[in-house]
Amino acid sequence: MQTQNIFVNGARLKETIEAFADFGRTPANGVTRLCFSEEDIKVRDYFRSCCESLGMTVKVDDMGCMYATLEGTEDKPPIVMGSHLDTVVKGGRFDGVLGVITGLEVVRTLVDHGIKPKIPVTVMNFTNEEGARFEPSMMASGVLSGKFDKDAMLKSKDREGVAFGEALEASGYQGDESNRIKEASAYLELHIEQGPVLEKEGLSIGLVDCVVGMVCYEIEVTGESNHAGTTPMDMRNDAFFTATDLVAELRSKLGGLDSELVFTMGRVNVYPNVHTVIPNKVVFTVEARHKDESVIEEVVRIINGLPESLGGCEVSKKKLWGRDTVWFDERVCGAVEKAAETLGYSSRKMASGAGHDAQFVASYLPSAMIFVPSVRGKSHCEEEFTPYEDCEKGVNVMLDTVLTLLAEA
Amino acid sequence: MQTQNIFVNGARLKETIEAFADFGRTPANGVTRLCFSEEDIKVRDYFRSCCESLGMTVKVDDMGCMYATLEGTEDKPPIVMGSHLDTVVKGGRFDGVLGVITGLEVVRTLVDHGIKPKIPVTVMNFTNEEGARFEPSMMASGVLSGKFDKDAMLKSKDREGVAFGEALEASGYQGDESNRIKEASAYLELHIEQGPVLEKEGLSIGLVDCVVGMVCYEIEVTGESNHAGTTPMDMRNDAFFTATDLVAELRSKLGGLDSELVFTMGRVNVYPNVHTVIPNKVVFTVEARHKDESVIEEVVRIINGLPESLGGCEVSKKKLWGRDTVWFDERVCGAVEKAAETLGYSSRKMASGAGHDAQFVASYLPSAMIFVPSVRGKSHCEEEFTPYEDCEKGVNVMLDTVLTLLAEA
Repeated sequence: MQTQNIFVNGARLKETIEAFADFGRTPANGVTRLCFSEEDIKVRDYFRSCCESLGMTVKVDDMGCMYATLEGTEDKPPIVMGSHLDTVVKGGRFDGVLGVITGLEVVRTLVDHGIKPKIPVTVMNFTNEEGARFEPSMMASGVLSGKFDKDAMLKSKDREGVAFGEALEASGYQGDESNRIKEASAYLELHIEQGPVLEKEGLSIGLVDCVVGMVCYEIEVTGESNHAGTTPMDMRNDAFFTATDLVAELRSKLGGLDSELVFTMGRVNVYPNVHTVIPNKVVFTVEARHKDESVIEEVVRIINGLPESLGGCEVSKKKLWGRDTVWFDERVCGAVEKAAETLGYSSRKMASGAGHDAQFVASYLPSAMIFVPSVRGKSHCEEEFTPYEDCEKGVNVMLDTVLTLLAEA
Repeated sequence: MQTQNIFVNGARLKETIEAFADFGRTPANGVTRLCFSEEDIKVRDYFRSCCESLGMTVKVDDMGCMYATLEGTEDKPPIVMGSHLDTVVKGGRFDGVLGVITGLEVVRTLVDHGIKPKIPVTVMNFTNEEGARFEPSMMASGVLSGKFDKDAMLKSKDREGVAFGEALEASGYQGDESNRIKEASAYLELHIEQGPVLEKEGLSIGLVDCVVGMVCYEIEVTGESNHAGTTPMDMRNDAFFTATDLVAELRSKLGGLDSELVFTMGRVNVYPNVHTVIPNKVVFTVEARHKDESVIEEVVRIINGLPESLGGCEVSKKKLWGRDTVWFDERVCGAVEKAAETLGYSSRKMASGAGHDAQFVASYLPSAMIFVPSVRGKSHCEEEFTPYEDCEKGVNVMLDTVLTLLAEA
């Protein structure tokens, strides 16, 4: 099978992106499409109708995940392309949905060219990737891969007290557990980068070989509150001053570890948080991500090596969580890399710093991800944007990858 | 008139402190007595009865301030001792009330010894010093000294929406504007230090010559929020990192100014305050106090000299408020100093870092303050404590001061 001379339809792709964005489009041209909201149910119906009109069969599993399948000439485990249709509140038009549209456009192109695949080709929509209405994120892929307990997930409630299980049932998208995907010749997810690297480096395609491991610690500094006016400086145990000393030490030591390490003190709370009272407590998080386990171990050593008392304050450290790096499948990654090369698109190998359904799916299906650039690295916001020509290149890489995998099947 | 050989009654003083503390005493032996609460009204009634049983006349002004006066042999402006009976929630048994009890014990001692003062001696209770139920603090002294607008104060509401004016009327302690104190030969306020200096230096009496001036600025650092996992360190504009750099610069520069300068970053808010998101905004306060105007001016120069941009973030500074140092009256301070010397009590001159009614009163009446030690510098909490012997020494200083001023009248 020749992969040359077959390209996706860029104009149709752009139209499709905008058609999907109409479900929950905000005044500022973002999208709000929470899991099993009216908009989410409508976009699912639309996705189903798009697929059925291509002759695909649409099945739904017990978590509401949708599987649209173009039959193969042989009944073998399918090639699966997927991502998610739900968004955060005031999210963008690309995060998640672009991966589903990619699958749809690949199948449309196959159909355009009369290509009957040797093995089935499935386009998936994972339920509740964002976790924006029902925690946790990556809920359905977590259940499918055995990471999350289904019963616990069904009980997860939104802010109005509606349980995920109730919303699932009411949506009309509660299918059968037997429809869950159990095997596949490959799982492929195209996603926006959600970071600035591809844009800054002027590259079109990110060849994602892993989702990085991470640790998150909480540091608690306990000092003593006293009156800001009556306590001389040398009689203070100021928890905020000690916290900033610790932050300086962490920045210096973590910053020297590896240029690909990222670390963030994103949550910082100061108590009692009154301008006339010396702070008696500061609690802040240190979250660090890197693909190499040895670097993460070094991070943990540095955090645990912080002094237990400093500036008259006690310092305690608590691990909130951690996860190991998930490496994608070499064969599937190789097919993606070959596709980018064949098409002559500029690309680089990179790690995903964010979590995706693919990281759970990778535990039982041979998986890979394709990144396309995010303008200014923005995501989960209405400004989120990927130029349409970059989307098109990404989908062409997906098409070429699928054709390669079909040829090898 | 001989001041030697006349001392207050220490046992009675201790009993009185505990009797007043019964109005609003908490299980942990603190006091909750919010302005015009049931406890505050009852303690006012008790204070009135104590004074009337000594033959004093009790008047009330339009702000609810109480004036208990022992007539003098001459009708001249009185010597006034005062403070406040209200407390914060879960406050202590000494802050404020000790200054009122001091006046009561001084008059009791005069009566014990059959001393008929040449000029009137008045004991005052200022309404709503704490501002804990109705903002602002030092409300009544602020109105009496023309710093606050009475009508605005009457409208100040508590958390339940009750206006100060309504509570004042309902309390039965709304008197006549003509009863406001307009002249006095001296205003004297004894108060707990609310700081650790006297205790740390092993001294009994603080000779307070001023209430320090202060400035409070708000620093706002604006960066850019991005995903903590996908944004390389060198592509970040992390508002928290920039804020900690600014704090380090401020600590270094302010710390070098003067050993008596105190400065506090007490209120710190980080946005969006999510562990997985790079902070895009940090707002923190810098509050500094010193008696010398030139030092405060230097503080302002240092704050305004902070860079306008740093670490990819914008930095803006806004003055929230400032107040000048209030110097107390030399003659009255001299009488206090002489009293401590006469009694052989260890003492030191010191500035008050906290605000008190005396700082407003000083604008139109010759005023001074006496401090007694605060154990561990604690105040506005249930652990607040001053040893009874220290209270007694403070009241003896007040008695001796009053006798000196009476002799000079």
